[in-house]
Amino acid sequence: MDIQATLDHIDQTLPQSLERLSELLRIQSISTDPDYADHCQTAADWLVADLASLGAEVSKRPTPGHPMVVGHIGDGAPHLLFYGHYDVQPVDPLELWNSDPFDPQIEDTPNGRVIRARGASDDKGQLMTFVEACRAWIATNGKLPCKITFFFEGEEESGSPSLIPFMKDNAAELKADVALICDTGMYDAQTPSITTMLRGLLGEELTITGPDRDLHSGMFGGIAMNPIRVLTKVLAGLHDDTGRVTLPGFYDGVPELPAEVREQWMALGDPTEMARDFLGAVGLSQPAGENTRTGLEMIWSRPTCDVNGIWGGYTGAGFKTVLPSQASAKVSFRLVGGQDPHAIREAFRAYVRAALPADCTVDFHGHGASPAATMDTSSPLFEAARQALTDEWPNPAVFAGCGGSIPIAGYFGDYLDMPAMLIGFAQDDDAIHSPNEKYGVESFHKGIRSWARVLGAVK
Amino acid sequence: MDIQATLDHIDQTLPQSLERLSELLRIQSISTDPDYADHCQTAADWLVADLASLGAEVSKRPTPGHPMVVGHIGDGAPHLLFYGHYDVQPVDPLELWNSDPFDPQIEDTPNGRVIRARGASDDKGQLMTFVEACRAWIATNGKLPCKITFFFEGEEESGSPSLIPFMKDNAAELKADVALICDTGMYDAQTPSITTMLRGLLGEELTITGPDRDLHSGMFGGIAMNPIRVLTKVLAGLHDDTGRVTLPGFYDGVPELPAEVREQWMALGDPTEMARDFLGAVGLSQPAGENTRTGLEMIWSRPTCDVNGIWGGYTGAGFKTVLPSQASAKVSFRLVGGQDPHAIREAFRAYVRAALPADCTVDFHGHGASPAATMDTSSPLFEAARQALTDEWPNPAVFAGCGGSIPIAGYFGDYLDMPAMLIGFAQDDDAIHSPNEKYGVESFHKGIRSWARVLGAVK
Repeated sequence: MDIQATLDHIDQTLPQSLERLSELLRIQSISTDPDYADHCQTAADWLVADLASLGAEVSKRPTPGHPMVVGHIGDGAPHLLFYGHYDVQPVDPLELWNSDPFDPQIEDTPNGRVIRARGASDDKGQLMTFVEACRAWIATNGKLPCKITFFFEGEEESGSPSLIPFMKDNAAELKADVALICDTGMYDAQTPSITTMLRGLLGEELTITGPDRDLHSGMFGGIAMNPIRVLTKVLAGLHDDTGRVTLPGFYDGVPELPAEVREQWMALGDPTEMARDFLGAVGLSQPAGENTRTGLEMIWSRPTCDVNGIWGGYTGAGFKTVLPSQASAKVSFRLVGGQDPHAIREAFRAYVRAALPADCTVDFHGHGASPAATMDTSSPLFEAARQALTDEWPNPAVFAGCGGSIPIAGYFGDYLDMPAMLIGFAQDDDAIHSPNEKYGVESFHKGIRSWARVLGAVK
Repeated sequence: MDIQATLDHIDQTLPQSLERLSELLRIQSISTDPDYADHCQTAADWLVADLASLGAEVSKRPTPGHPMVVGHIGDGAPHLLFYGHYDVQPVDPLELWNSDPFDPQIEDTPNGRVIRARGASDDKGQLMTFVEACRAWIATNGKLPCKITFFFEGEEESGSPSLIPFMKDNAAELKADVALICDTGMYDAQTPSITTMLRGLLGEELTITGPDRDLHSGMFGGIAMNPIRVLTKVLAGLHDDTGRVTLPGFYDGVPELPAEVREQWMALGDPTEMARDFLGAVGLSQPAGENTRTGLEMIWSRPTCDVNGIWGGYTGAGFKTVLPSQASAKVSFRLVGGQDPHAIREAFRAYVRAALPADCTVDFHGHGASPAATMDTSSPLFEAARQALTDEWPNPAVFAGCGGSIPIAGYFGDYLDMPAMLIGFAQDDDAIHSPNEKYGVESFHKGIRSWARVLGAVK
């Protein structure tokens, strides 16, 4: 297989590839906010048209939420399914962006050229590395080396409510030999990785109600229970002084790291220095997790609890001496190993209810519950892909953990009985979910080349 | 003095009095939000015109913030100064109002007719009781019984930043025999009160910063310190399990209630039943303050700490797994006796700083600091006013405490060396600072009559 001609073509057509990515980035496909539903449709339409231009048999598939895009092209073994998502996170706080989040800009930075926009890294830029690799394969070889199914969703940033029903309803069409997922990062700028351990995610929203209306803290302050006081006490009690989560049974099913994996991770560098470097990039210095764990464990193999949002009372300019009726928070748990999201949801709710004073009530709203996923790396496709990545980048590729949750990785095993291989080219400083998100032009360029090599290697 | 003719006139012209109040209530004079500055000017202009129509020598006086209105009318001893404020609280959450907060409505309710609008009770309705009493005096007697100075400000709901400088700069003009302040309530619907103990108020806003940008909780959750976690721990630590505030030195200067005052308060009814009734009106049942104190003590004679607002992270619809850079809160303390607001501010800030982990920083913004005020009731004007109120209402008037802070009451003593007499006709269920604020038409009507009697009695 003359892969070099394909790689050369990728190098020569990079400007056109970047322009196509920019077109997709201009579409404001925020899935979590209903006001942007039309933009999600537009993004799906754009992908249908782009895949059709490759010769794929492709269509937009309705769901109760945002649509799926499914396309098929090529033939022959192995049958690869490529998954990505076209939806993006909200952009607030907008005032912290240096440019319009939906007007992508190519910028030179001290760490190289980047393309800056919401979704540049998560996940439009990553998704397009694979599409562009296919385009280059077809341009230089007339066709793809094997059968490929594209499977794009538009609800990944809002909990993928339509995904499992759609996979079940279309199992025969989607079933392949392996699912390729491009929503992860490199270990560092020189070291590609295949992610084989993913944390799960449980989201909970709670609203505590005290008095049945907002009160004046002069008239009622001191005698009326303030729900913010209750909420802060509840949330403050979720961690003990060692950084452990206090919910009963929370650590049930959390495995200790196998000795060989611990050794492999220790070989990546001194844990204290690594934690300091990792945190130093965001203005921190002290690991805040369980004080008996290394930084890599804290983000790859240990469960967490974070408050992602809190609100109550008067939050505008100036001061208002209100004693509010309600206080709310959004809380998430990152899960590992065999932790049961539903058991932890119940433990959380029981803990909150038990902590409430007599006069307070609580309402809960669940926001998704996915267990952790550990990949089965026994298929020879994993080793072939690892070698292809090693050929492209300065350092050998590693099997790594990932702190984030990509529930889809587990769903392919659970509902379609196929392994998932997670390869991505994002960097830690891509600022995904944050203002000024970017994707390195090198991530994009060498990402396309990496996929071209993987397509050559798995044949 | 033929007070009956004046009272009859008040009864006959109540519809016109209500229409004038409605005009003032339509002006959106929210002082804490700079967007409403023009409306504050409009409210001041309206008052100038209304006092001029009585024959007062009146003008709008500029300040660095919203203007004062000062007017003089009549002559002869005693010289009474009447203070009120034309500014109102913000109206959020707007969706909880049953009608436009700035379109006053007269409504029949199970507890009688009310006028419903922001500021109906606090303080436009109360302010107009005195103005209307003066109007009726003039209409029926040709003039007022003594010299009266009107003094209205527009910054009471935003900490009165211009008040002390203005009082100092205009001391000769404002000095009178007694200051009448109409910003307090009745003890109950049958029992008028003159408020002689007022809590002070200290406001603090704090913002805790952890990472230097918003992070993705998948990538950083577990290793990066979450400032919401720090904030909840700090705020949860402000009260112990008995309801006491934990700041060192917080109770310095807090007096025990004199035995005779305690007896007078106990004579008002069974403390447990009173607390249950008071709280029952807002959907609560359990006093939440120091567990060794009665409900009346909690709101009249004990200091408090309340979180009036809290915010951080993602608070919109759906879920965003952000690990935020910052978390903020607005905290206030109600002060009594000799508590020093500045010492407590320093104790609060020292407590927060000591509780911060190594990687977090905190910024503080002070929002006013006024000590508690205890009135000197030795002037015979107090007993004369108490008798006049007793003549108007079913039950005898009482000297009472007040949980809210009316810093102006102390300022008249501190800066103009004159006593302040606090008489008001608000009810506990007026929902001041809350949605659907109202003022009883009876409060307004009998309030006007009460002031007409007071004017007749103090001559």
